[in-house]
Amino acid sequence: MAIIAVLGAGIMASALATPLADNGHQVRLVGTHLDRDIIDAIQTTGVHPNLGLQLPSGTTAYQLEDAAEAFDGVDLVMSGVNSFGVRWAGRQLASLLRPGMHVIALAKGMEADAEGNLTILPRVLADEIPADLRGRLTFSAIAGPSIAGEVAIRRHTSVVFTGDDEAAVAMWRDLFATDHYHVWTSTDFVGVEVCAATKNCYAFGAGFMSGILDSMGEEAGSRYVNFNYGAAIFGQASIEMVDFMHLLGGRPSTPLGLAGIGDCFVTSMGGRNVKCGRLVGAGLTFSEARAQMPGVTLEGAAAIVVIGSALVLLTQRGLVAPERFPLLRHLHDVVAFDRPVDVPWDSFFGADGAGGA
Amino acid sequence: MAIIAVLGAGIMASALATPLADNGHQVRLVGTHLDRDIIDAIQTTGVHPNLGLQLPSGTTAYQLEDAAEAFDGVDLVMSGVNSFGVRWAGRQLASLLRPGMHVIALAKGMEADAEGNLTILPRVLADEIPADLRGRLTFSAIAGPSIAGEVAIRRHTSVVFTGDDEAAVAMWRDLFATDHYHVWTSTDFVGVEVCAATKNCYAFGAGFMSGILDSMGEEAGSRYVNFNYGAAIFGQASIEMVDFMHLLGGRPSTPLGLAGIGDCFVTSMGGRNVKCGRLVGAGLTFSEARAQMPGVTLEGAAAIVVIGSALVLLTQRGLVAPERFPLLRHLHDVVAFDRPVDVPWDSFFGADGAGGA
Repeated sequence: MAIIAVLGAGIMASALATPLADNGHQVRLVGTHLDRDIIDAIQTTGVHPNLGLQLPSGTTAYQLEDAAEAFDGVDLVMSGVNSFGVRWAGRQLASLLRPGMHVIALAKGMEADAEGNLTILPRVLADEIPADLRGRLTFSAIAGPSIAGEVAIRRHTSVVFTGDDEAAVAMWRDLFATDHYHVWTSTDFVGVEVCAATKNCYAFGAGFMSGILDSMGEEAGSRYVNFNYGAAIFGQASIEMVDFMHLLGGRPSTPLGLAGIGDCFVTSMGGRNVKCGRLVGAGLTFSEARAQMPGVTLEGAAAIVVIGSALVLLTQRGLVAPERFPLLRHLHDVVAFDRPVDVPWDSFFGADGAGGA
Repeated sequence: MAIIAVLGAGIMASALATPLADNGHQVRLVGTHLDRDIIDAIQTTGVHPNLGLQLPSGTTAYQLEDAAEAFDGVDLVMSGVNSFGVRWAGRQLASLLRPGMHVIALAKGMEADAEGNLTILPRVLADEIPADLRGRLTFSAIAGPSIAGEVAIRRHTSVVFTGDDEAAVAMWRDLFATDHYHVWTSTDFVGVEVCAATKNCYAFGAGFMSGILDSMGEEAGSRYVNFNYGAAIFGQASIEMVDFMHLLGGRPSTPLGLAGIGDCFVTSMGGRNVKCGRLVGAGLTFSEARAQMPGVTLEGAAAIVVIGSALVLLTQRGLVAPERFPLLRHLHDVVAFDRPVDVPWDSFFGADGAGGA
């Protein structure tokens, strides 16, 4: 039996208590300062209010000030915070971690420096930890298509665990894998994480197909679902994810399967990010759509701004040809500059229309 | 202004009259023996009864016995029959075509010989035409994600035209391409057509995710959509489509973009084939599900039998390792042998779980 301390009590981190508990392990959820009510609820009722489910027995919850207690005697740590909290989480972990511990992270996104150089979030997390300690830890990450609620109730889910340290990744797989939670491993840390970040961007664009129908009202006709439009967006996303491998150093085969195509599928099927894309597709500016969703975290839109801005800088530096990533650039125009949706179809699919580069 | 004679008056062939008419071209639809009522209706009302839409002006309809009249003075021919009618269409065209004519085909599927060697359908069509005439024709094909009704009402649609003769493919593109019907071209004839055939197989499997929820009834819970399950199926489909390129001689990059991923997306979103997969996912045998859909054409299930049987033979011949194509083999077990759905998750995603080969 292992004990896993988790920083952040969001729905994904909490849902992962199910496969861990099914394997006989215990989870200690430590809430961030934003999770105070969630921790209260779990401590009182055992139910995660946002997940809407009873957490497995053996799962305990701690307020942030009790983090040291939760981390006591533990070697295994999960960072469950979202992309906005990664540097904060790194600073917290700097004082909670000890040499020899293993960290696995959930946040999806990238960070860019002032020159447009992009970094995957597990490295950003590690960057906040002093170098001498950092060198004596391992960092891994969980990616691939998984809706938290489905994981929590044992629906078949297939994911990818990745990291630099192959033995650590295999160790995490053995802790998590069950008959319902299927885990593959990859040593393409950059490739898997870049897929995870960019799929959130493209899923925003997947909302356009429904938004355009919304804007047409009755004229849209219930028989016409605009899937041809969505399929072209999805197809172009698959091509750009492979091109991101070339740009950022992932393996070109990584977007196939779970990490890219599979995750882009599940993310495009719904959620807050797609909903915002739908509002924009219906004719609102991004700012107007954003204002209709107060308080809602939009990691996809944020990733579009980070990655799209970086592409502008990388293009200025001559590192990326301006005709590469036309869909991501359009999403950036829409989200960062409130431009209307006007998909640049004729710039898609590279030189060879079959989709090959 | 060009005139295009079309053999087969199904919904896809008829929907393509819209972009052609938008470019000022005329279409002459020739019904097969199965299309008699459709042709009658178009001749009387101008409405295609299955498409449920008025066809563009300039579109005329002919019964099969008037085919020679429809083909008179025409250089451009579309074969609009489905996969079951391809050899029949080839025999009809053998007496209607003249040297110098250009043929473009819509049917999606493959044919296998007794040893399991697979052939794309445009080559099967051409095979029925005497060699001396055949050598003086060009054969092209239309692939990529397009729901017919959406093409007919000018929803944005992005497709791939392919063939051996690059000039002929470009000529067809120029005839069809409009501001809404976006056409790319590829010379990877085999790759594009193999994607088009196999995506119909995998879309059958996409029905399982909903079927499993159906079988659970109330217990499924309306919040849980089983998209994790669907995403894994979709991800594995993308990997197997690339593997089919290796097996059959297409370019490994062809499944990216429109021909594979994009088309698999749109085909998985609905239709008869997915509906049948859903019934099987809910617990019926394929034979029972088939019996609930009398008279319905199921090209995906037929393609599963053809391609799955061929894989068995190719494996026996030592040309395909038994661990390749685990999803297609399972679909074959389900459709050809009435086995229950029991997705072999742990055989998916190759050796490297990120999805790379």
